[in-house]
Amino acid sequence: MGASDMKVACIGLGSMGLVMARNLLKAGHDLTVWNRSPEPAAVLGREGAGHATTAADAVAGAEAIVTMLANDAAVRAVFLQDGVLDAMSSTTVHVNCATISIALAEELAEAHHGRGIAYVAAPVFGRPDVAATGGLNIVAAGPRPAIAAIQPLLDAIGTKTWVVGEEPEQANAVKIGGNLMIAAAIESMAEATALGAATGVDAKTMLDIYTGTMFACRAYQSYAPMIAERRYEPAGFKLALGLKDVRLALAAGDAANVPLPFASALRDAMLEAVAAGDGDKDWSALAETARRRAGQGRG
Amino acid sequence: MGASDMKVACIGLGSMGLVMARNLLKAGHDLTVWNRSPEPAAVLGREGAGHATTAADAVAGAEAIVTMLANDAAVRAVFLQDGVLDAMSSTTVHVNCATISIALAEELAEAHHGRGIAYVAAPVFGRPDVAATGGLNIVAAGPRPAIAAIQPLLDAIGTKTWVVGEEPEQANAVKIGGNLMIAAAIESMAEATALGAATGVDAKTMLDIYTGTMFACRAYQSYAPMIAERRYEPAGFKLALGLKDVRLALAAGDAANVPLPFASALRDAMLEAVAAGDGDKDWSALAETARRRAGQGRG
Amino acid sequence: MGASDMKVACIGLGSMGLVMARNLLKAGHDLTVWNRSPEPAAVLGREGAGHATTAADAVAGAEAIVTMLANDAAVRAVFLQDGVLDAMSSTTVHVNCATISIALAEELAEAHHGRGIAYVAAPVFGRPDVAATGGLNIVAAGPRPAIAAIQPLLDAIGTKTWVVGEEPEQANAVKIGGNLMIAAAIESMAEATALGAATGVDAKTMLDIYTGTMFACRAYQSYAPMIAERRYEPAGFKLALGLKDVRLALAAGDAANVPLPFASALRDAMLEAVAAGDGDKDWSALAETARRRAGQGRG
Amino acid sequence: MGASDMKVACIGLGSMGLVMARNLLKAGHDLTVWNRSPEPAAVLGREGAGHATTAADAVAGAEAIVTMLANDAAVRAVFLQDGVLDAMSSTTVHVNCATISIALAEELAEAHHGRGIAYVAAPVFGRPDVAATGGLNIVAAGPRPAIAAIQPLLDAIGTKTWVVGEEPEQANAVKIGGNLMIAAAIESMAEATALGAATGVDAKTMLDIYTGTMFACRAYQSYAPMIAERRYEPAGFKLALGLKDVRLALAAGDAANVPLPFASALRDAMLEAVAAGDGDKDWSALAETARRRAGQGRG
Repeated sequence: MGASDMKVACIGLGSMGLVMARNLLKAGHDLTVWNRSPEPAAVLGREGAGHATTAADAVAGAEAIVTMLANDAAVRAVFLQDGVLDAMSSTTVHVNCATISIALAEELAEAHHGRGIAYVAAPVFGRPDVAATGGLNIVAAGPRPAIAAIQPLLDAIGTKTWVVGEEPEQANAVKIGGNLMIAAAIESMAEATALGAATGVDAKTMLDIYTGTMFACRAYQSYAPMIAERRYEPAGFKLALGLKDVRLALAAGDAANVPLPFASALRDAMLEAVAAGDGDKDWSALAETARRRAGQGRG
Repeated sequence: MGASDMKVACIGLGSMGLVMARNLLKAGHDLTVWNRSPEPAAVLGREGAGHATTAADAVAGAEAIVTMLANDAAVRAVFLQDGVLDAMSSTTVHVNCATISIALAEELAEAHHGRGIAYVAAPVFGRPDVAATGGLNIVAAGPRPAIAAIQPLLDAIGTKTWVVGEEPEQANAVKIGGNLMIAAAIESMAEATALGAATGVDAKTMLDIYTGTMFACRAYQSYAPMIAERRYEPAGFKLALGLKDVRLALAAGDAANVPLPFASALRDAMLEAVAAGDGDKDWSALAETARRRAGQGRG
Repeated sequence: MGASDMKVACIGLGSMGLVMARNLLKAGHDLTVWNRSPEPAAVLGREGAGHATTAADAVAGAEAIVTMLANDAAVRAVFLQDGVLDAMSSTTVHVNCATISIALAEELAEAHHGRGIAYVAAPVFGRPDVAATGGLNIVAAGPRPAIAAIQPLLDAIGTKTWVVGEEPEQANAVKIGGNLMIAAAIESMAEATALGAATGVDAKTMLDIYTGTMFACRAYQSYAPMIAERRYEPAGFKLALGLKDVRLALAAGDAANVPLPFASALRDAMLEAVAAGDGDKDWSALAETARRRAGQGRG
Repeated sequence: MGASDMKVACIGLGSMGLVMARNLLKAGHDLTVWNRSPEPAAVLGREGAGHATTAADAVAGAEAIVTMLANDAAVRAVFLQDGVLDAMSSTTVHVNCATISIALAEELAEAHHGRGIAYVAAPVFGRPDVAATGGLNIVAAGPRPAIAAIQPLLDAIGTKTWVVGEEPEQANAVKIGGNLMIAAAIESMAEATALGAATGVDAKTMLDIYTGTMFACRAYQSYAPMIAERRYEPAGFKLALGLKDVRLALAAGDAANVPLPFASALRDAMLEAVAAGDGDKDWSALAETARRRAGQGRG
């Protein structure tokens, strides 16, 4: 173990959290992990991590805590209701990588501040397969010294850290805005291809052009093939989760009086997609809602 | 002049048409040009082009006609009302690069077909500065032999030709869909940055992250700096023209029963932008509409 | 025939035009009628009207011309292309009751003005069954003396004339706005009942309450039973025609930079309804689009 | 006091709750009242009501409890957090007249059910001035015997009770849907009058026609004068509260996968209105948002 290695607790080991923890382990950090269901913690245990039986045990004595829980409810349950915060040392830095609401981010910042614990929001852009190769982009916000202290951890997890401010919720805003933009990219491909279909241009032809020219970037290139082939499973990111993120954007806009007509249109389209049974498919299945609305069958 | 050089008429010499004609001239083709206002034709005349006094004169005897007029009205005036079609030889190929409606594209295809004249729609993606270096992407549709015949011209104009079908309007649909997607990209940056501003993240910080990661492509990178700096002049593409293109998408959707909620939201936002006096600014000024709606001042 | 009886030409004898002409006949006016298809003119001929073989013949010598054609295209064909305007005397008053676009209204006003013919726009609110009993509400705009001159005709057709201005298009704006409001009333019932269905409240229960209290008026009471019973045929007003009127609102908004988010949402919903095969049903069938979107079956 | 007079606790004495309590008092019922701020309770005390110092004291021994609290938060605080439920007798009927979310309605129904207490949702349509004359329309849902038992109370409060089902949240759905419809009525007047203004027809002229013909009902007639005169104060119902109710509709739709495009458009417009400083004005001030968007000044 090197001089800079840290004692780290990892809370939340879903598909993304597991990969992140593994990268921290590989980088030589002293890891203790906890997850509500024990299986992924056992896996990491076999790879060298300590396996705590409660989240409070996991965080006790940790220099840094890296959290990757699924949503507001899970974060709230662990950190605001289960008393895990009280088990944390005031010298700990809490790095919360989960995509959560602005409101909860503010509430957490305040709760940590009241206990003198440094709190950093560090949501990530990228899928688990990208994370496995250390390729995540990390958006971080919080006290500068705290971010500096945990930079080695972020370097083990991602390829680049984008520091956006000192208020943790600022990082969440960037993440929420980015996911809104990805959802909008999908819907715009959905509308353009429905329009194309009306003159007999197939989706693949259109999307090859777009993603080969002005839209030659990941947000489009990741989803264009699924839309072109109308194959939305296995899901890279489930539509129902995408809807959750659009709700986070709307809630943030709601709190700050920011009208978001695209987010509103996306909410309506995604609800319709879920009602049509597409909630567990990839969120690019939004293209099917556009097709159904236009009366374009499965042809 | 090489063996394959063609006798070409260029109709419409706006900022884009002028550059395209010049590229054809440089490639060694025998050019006759016409424009409603004579100045740009005179410029090209000094560079070696023939300068016709009427469009009918320009097209008489041409092997190919390359058209780059501003909009439906201009195309209709020249080709359906001024009788230019009647001046064209039945061996001519008409290559219409203008961004026009699906309805007019269909009408033109029929009018040419009735006279036995080959008609190719070949709208382009790219701005005049890109066109100057021959970097346009050309989307072509029409009879395959006609496209093959004028391929040398397209090669002189653009970097790549994407053939999408045999019905000319199919190329227009791809162009209209692509412009809708660019407008949607702008609006999604506008909404995300208005959301970010609500938590104190500035637009530049957000957009640098987005355009440096998932959105590292021209549609976003071209407009992000204007939004970040709130400087929308000189306009790369005027908002009022963008609104025209969104109208083309809506009209195409209307004719084929394709609902387009993003296009509808864009129409409303762009009308509001024009009402606020931003019609002559770059269409990325849509970001100012999002800010105004959220009560975010010029700060 | 009384002292004030007028020599009137009626152009356009659809279901509404026929009833209006009959009321004019009953009121003792000297009627000549014309319709593109001759049957309804023959019917009125048997009731005492003169039956002209061309529109130009019908208008020649008339003191007043009452027009009730189906849409912009029909009005344009008869009055701007077929030269009927040239057959009109400069002492004639043209009363155009058709629901047409603001743009065409302005064009007609100008064309009449150029020939010194008084032009009054007088669109009506009400269905043919209401018209049969003289119960229409007439919205009129045009030169005051001209309106005064044809007031006896309006009194024969409707129960009340609402004069809204001296520019004919102003009456069309009121009509277009009113139809937009009716469409919005239908969509709001559609959304409320889809919401109710989600908690098991049936549409009839909800709509009885609404139309028995705050919404006890014709716009709601006319359509609530169709929505409650999900029976949209026979159509009182076809959805496809309603879509046409929403387009008129959008076009008017477009020309004057007036964003209309409800009209945009209506357009998208109505296109979807037409795509689903409901175009010939009553426009209250919009409720089925709301149900389909929510995954609420025919249950 | 008559044989059928009941011992009633009234919780929540805002402008509406106060009037309702007074009507119960006038009808001869034995009233104990409670309100978080004591002033209105003191007023009713002087009129003959008992004045409890805590909500728990107020409900102890009551045969019926009539609740009119401001929103979800207030209802939750009193009934789910302050333990008032535990102070209620199992023979009590709780009549909750507040406009609350479907989710809270369900939660309350369950909480009461668990304690064997009958729970009736009975939201009302009408403003305090209407309530003062006993003119409210009451929408009730809950166990039939419980509704029957408290019918005398409802008769004292309103002019008519509309029973919509046995699940309390069904009444809330009807109320939420009705408020959505009123908001939509306002927005549709806003759009129509902005369209009219573009051709120079003033709002009063338009709205007089609409509310004198197809829209001759309270939802329109209550707000048309405010829109016509552009005078939105004093507020009959504050825009910020209307936004709260639109959020209830969206939340209900969200939970049941019911897309609500009008509600989405309303949310965006109302957020914009609040951002522009109109939150405390009457919700018909939405018309000003439509005007601002169209660049129509205060003229």
